Amino acid sequence: MTRPAAAILLTGNELLRGVISDANGAHLAASLEAHGFSVQRTLVVGDGLPEIERALRELVGEADLVVSSGGLGPTHDDRTVEALANVAGVALVLDEAVLARIDRWTDQVAVRYGLDRSGFDAGNRKQAHVPVGATVLGMAGTAPGLVMPVDGSVVVVLPGVPSELRRLWADAPGHAALVEMFARATPRARWLMRTYGIGESHVADIHRSAGGDPPGVETSICARSFEIEIDIRADPGYDEAAEALAAEMRGRLGDHVFATDERPLAAIVLDLLRERGWTGATAESCTGGMVAAALTDIAGSSDAFAGGVVAYSNRLKHDLLDVPEELLERHGAVSSEAAEAMAAGARARLGADAAVAVTGIAGPGGGTEEKPVGLVYLHVSSPAGDDVRRMDIPGSREAVRGRSATAALQLLRAHLVTHS
Amino acid sequence: MTRPAAAILLTGNELLRGVISDANGAHLAASLEAHGFSVQRTLVVGDGLPEIERALRELVGEADLVVSSGGLGPTHDDRTVEALANVAGVALVLDEAVLARIDRWTDQVAVRYGLDRSGFDAGNRKQAHVPVGATVLGMAGTAPGLVMPVDGSVVVVLPGVPSELRRLWADAPGHAALVEMFARATPRARWLMRTYGIGESHVADIHRSAGGDPPGVETSICARSFEIEIDIRADPGYDEAAEALAAEMRGRLGDHVFATDERPLAAIVLDLLRERGWTGATAESCTGGMVAAALTDIAGSSDAFAGGVVAYSNRLKHDLLDVPEELLERHGAVSSEAAEAMAAGARARLGADAAVAVTGIAGPGGGTEEKPVGLVYLHVSSPAGDDVRRMDIPGSREAVRGRSATAALQLLRAHLVTHS
Repeated sequence: MTRPAAAILLTGNELLRGVISDANGAHLAASLEAHGFSVQRTLVVGDGLPEIERALRELVGEADLVVSSGGLGPTHDDRTVEALANVAGVALVLDEAVLARIDRWTDQVAVRYGLDRSGFDAGNRKQAHVPVGATVLGMAGTAPGLVMPVDGSVVVVLPGVPSELRRLWADAPGHAALVEMFARATPRARWLMRTYGIGESHVADIHRSAGGDPPGVETSICARSFEIEIDIRADPGYDEAAEALAAEMRGRLGDHVFATDERPLAAIVLDLLRERGWTGATAESCTGGMVAAALTDIAGSSDAFAGGVVAYSNRLKHDLLDVPEELLERHGAVSSEAAEAMAAGARARLGADAAVAVTGIAGPGGGTEEKPVGLVYLHVSSPAGDDVRRMDIPGSREAVRGRSATAALQLLRAHLVTHS
Repeated sequence: MTRPAAAILLTGNELLRGVISDANGAHLAASLEAHGFSVQRTLVVGDGLPEIERALRELVGEADLVVSSGGLGPTHDDRTVEALANVAGVALVLDEAVLARIDRWTDQVAVRYGLDRSGFDAGNRKQAHVPVGATVLGMAGTAPGLVMPVDGSVVVVLPGVPSELRRLWADAPGHAALVEMFARATPRARWLMRTYGIGESHVADIHRSAGGDPPGVETSICARSFEIEIDIRADPGYDEAAEALAAEMRGRLGDHVFATDERPLAAIVLDLLRERGWTGATAESCTGGMVAAALTDIAGSSDAFAGGVVAYSNRLKHDLLDVPEELLERHGAVSSEAAEAMAAGARARLGADAAVAVTGIAGPGGGTEEKPVGLVYLHVSSPAGDDVRRMDIPGSREAVRGRSATAALQLLRAHLVTHS
């Protein structure tokens, strides 16, 4: 059974020129894959009408479903709907129902900001023009998302603003013109293993030693957020072979596997704290708040995360975390002793059960021969004991900070798992 | 004078399926644009040999320069070099010099990690095979980046790891096969205006009122990081018209324009603090360390940023920031009074001149009718006085936190500019 083919079109000069990074492609691709589509390609083109028309023609010829993002706004640069009509060879007609919905929206905006309503008229009429044969998927402010069959394929036209794209796309599987195609799409079974502390090439070796991919099974090994993710997918009917490969790799990877679901690392740490009825705290120097920011990014974190201190200077390490001045003088702020004292101070001052401390030299300045850029000390302290780690991280300030922040959460996670 | 055309190819199943977000496309596009190339399109395809070959053929037919990322590793999934040879119709031959460089690298790795050197042999020989006619741009670990003329265009093959791609790409303009093309590329003059506190459609109105784009001038208006960026570019010979448009828009935008360069907002704030010889501090509740993390992301921030406190609970707002318990009981932790006391407490406790405090309800839980999700209070305090802001932010937890963190830095920036 073949999966229906999908293609993604991202439009916008600002994307094409790298002024902004794309935020929609990965979301659409992951969603299409999860629904059981086979994504063929993603294409990025500029705002020009001929460019968009050509891209739509190519992709319609290639895939059962084409999803586009961008170019639905009220300005002259927004040409996707016009391009769609031209490719389908149909006229753009004013849809009175759509116009009424857009007018309601802009009336509210006009009232809220005290603007003249008539200023919106031209833009509203432009956005209410819809190709003959297209149906409305939903409204993103003044922009209608559209669904339209073209030459045996279906094109879904979405706005470029990521939050609006996500909202409208969520309704696509239920749309009358798409229900049948989504029903045909069969999601592949998936085995996910997330590892930490092992390199990508070592994981690739383990995959090879386990016999590699049997027919109908596809393994992706990729590094992201300083972990290596192993993603095994099976075509319908090949689950057993994939299951066997996953079990074999799992055995060889051992404790390097820290998760088999997609929860963010910070959410895993918070759940482990909750299991113990503990609260956590952070004491950060070189990561400057990144560990706390990751933990508080998770909704509901306040029940398991007390708070944190960002103490860059020696004075603040002393004043806010009770790190003894004498210790800082003797060992320096970047030392295992300072990390230990910071963790202890955070537990005491923030009234937390478990604390993780990070101190290091993020660079590019500040390194010495004895303590080079990239030297980082981590310390976790809790009623169950202490765990420590020393790292020498190569690369940029961004790399040192990013890896340190992840390593701090991983050390806390391992501590909570080990001392359970 | 036409600019040389460029196209970008990103390969990898993990990209195509949205397992990871692309980190290379925007970097390459921005760099090509800055060098004076006209980027035609970016294409994302999977790891399969036929897919990569077809994509290379299409793009070689389209652009003077094709830059690809990914598929250079030692495993069977890494097929870009093979595809390049097939598209050019040439053989892959073992390059002894490249093999020697790869062997030196893996010997070091083997010594460092105590591995068997022979385990690398097969991978090394694979990666040392280079198409006839290709030259080496540089090495990324065991992967050679290549430059190769194909059918009147030049293909540059780069690794997918972002740091390695950046390092190798930086050498491309000086490579013998590319010097002439880079010399022909003429960067467009560019006027950048970054605005805050004004909507995208309002900026588009101002652009229209200013007459829109004259011939040879291209304006992009786009939202990123909660600011609206206006980017005006002029083809050679059209600088005066672009300059006039920029000046006209600048006049109408007034104080909404906060920067005309690309420094991160946090770097602008740190520079303003330095100009006064001040240090800054943060007191964060709902943003949970994001403001501190943004400031410490900037190299050298330690001279102008003292530190920060992440105080989620009322107890910590009292213990670490001296917010009176009575105030919290009477007004609540999300109140202008609490924000004011947090800022004052941060100045005193962290010994900083200027402090910014953020308290709000990030959601999705925790809102009430009186204090709904999205309600945020900001307070800046310094020897020059106080500035405050109350926000009602619609949307997700991520949106509330992101907008609040940016608004906190903007309020501090405006404070430092106004009271100078």
